[in-house]
Amino acid sequence: MSVFSWPVRVYVEDTDFGGIVYYANYLRFCERARTEWLRSKGWSQSVLAGERGVLFSVVGAQVNYRRPARLDDELVITCEPRRDGRASICFAQRILRGAELLADADVRVACLAAGTLRPMRLPEFVVAEVG
Amino acid sequence: MSVFSWPVRVYVEDTDFGGIVYYANYLRFCERARTEWLRSKGWSQSVLAGERGVLFSVVGAQVNYRRPARLDDELVITCEPRRDGRASICFAQRILRGAELLADADVRVACLAAGTLRPMRLPEFVVAEVG
Amino acid sequence: MSVFSWPVRVYVEDTDFGGIVYYANYLRFCERARTEWLRSKGWSQSVLAGERGVLFSVVGAQVNYRRPARLDDELVITCEPRRDGRASICFAQRILRGAELLADADVRVACLAAGTLRPMRLPEFVVAEVG
Amino acid sequence: MSVFSWPVRVYVEDTDFGGIVYYANYLRFCERARTEWLRSKGWSQSVLAGERGVLFSVVGAQVNYRRPARLDDELVITCEPRRDGRASICFAQRILRGAELLADADVRVACLAAGTLRPMRLPEFVVAEVG
Repeated sequence: MSVFSWPVRVYVEDTDFGGIVYYANYLRFCERARTEWLRSKGWSQSVLAGERGVLFSVVGAQVNYRRPARLDDELVITCEPRRDGRASICFAQRILRGAELLADADVRVACLAAGTLRPMRLPEFVVAEVG
Repeated sequence: MSVFSWPVRVYVEDTDFGGIVYYANYLRFCERARTEWLRSKGWSQSVLAGERGVLFSVVGAQVNYRRPARLDDELVITCEPRRDGRASICFAQRILRGAELLADADVRVACLAAGTLRPMRLPEFVVAEVG
Repeated sequence: MSVFSWPVRVYVEDTDFGGIVYYANYLRFCERARTEWLRSKGWSQSVLAGERGVLFSVVGAQVNYRRPARLDDELVITCEPRRDGRASICFAQRILRGAELLADADVRVACLAAGTLRPMRLPEFVVAEVG
Repeated sequence: MSVFSWPVRVYVEDTDFGGIVYYANYLRFCERARTEWLRSKGWSQSVLAGERGVLFSVVGAQVNYRRPARLDDELVITCEPRRDGRASICFAQRILRGAELLADADVRVACLAAGTLRPMRLPEFVVAEVG
């Protein structure tokens, strides 16, 4: 089965004084890939928030940084979702430069009601997708 | 008359691969000083947005970058507001490292209605402050 | 003559509590387009810094914000460079959503020696391009 | 024994369209506290990099997000370092709003040689501090 992936180019904004990508920014890259996975299923966060009152909110993240990414690198971010109970999804993600694994992350995302920021069940259409 | 100013420390997150502060981040520093000026007058953007439905939105910015700031620098950001018509405020701002002028900026801020994002008049309590 | 342009998608990381793109982030988008213009000419900033000791550094920026960009927007950033004296380039840039002009910016970029951060002349191969 | 802590104010730049702090930005806050812990011991990253050729680089991070932080919140970030082998330090960190725990993080930091980005032993003066 193919794994969803999304390309990310490293720009100056992503780097720090050490000449490498700032460590928090890998989490931005991971979120871009999750967003594009969602979009590939026909949904967007702006529509989910505006029309259904659903926010996806990260409740846990674990990242292993193996090798630094640098300016101008062309990265690929993978995204493998699986259901985690009734209210959250776990995404296994990898940050690759060619065949080289630069970092991997497990990111757990929960559903919040947009108005109250209280947890809510995963919408049916999300459950259907991540099983 | 004294000028409002706010200290900002440069952290790794602010720097880029050139070893200096990334150019867009000076605008973040300037906005911190504007926010603290507002707070010094007894208001906050979260209260203004939540209770009065007012967002302050930047409509124009001009920045001159003279000397780079670097990691660990202690900067001071000044903030001199003046009224600019019925719907906006102009902030003259400087970014200093000791007596050294690193950058200066003119930032024009307008009022938007939080729901519609349409322009609205400056609230009376803001007009009273910036004359 | 065609104008160089580069697509940018708006992600959650780019937005702020007002539901719109944070004002400093438009400058990140503009810099991505300048970087890709440079790449389209066969150069990259990492190679220029590493092999030739040249950093491009923004010395001035003027931005007009006309309409807010929002989450999930597909933007296009244009980039029109012209030479500005012996040591800098001016980029006229626009941020578009379809035919709608959201913002425009004039960004002046100078050359610095990577080690000393002192100004230096534009390299010949840059002059040849922006004439 | 007292725990090192550092105050962080939430600004617009830290928030996202959900009205809460963007999840990657908690890692920026954590890094500010680590930097200030280091500074409280008389060192700075710029001096360590420039004079000793040492970069601290995050090799692992685990974050639990419990409650969202919002615009204008006054947070406190704690920082409890302990040695982890010969080449890395583990920081236990918490993000608090008053007595309320918003998030906690374990961040593992290793030493890299600034030029080569290769791992190196913790400098003696760091070992002396974190034992």
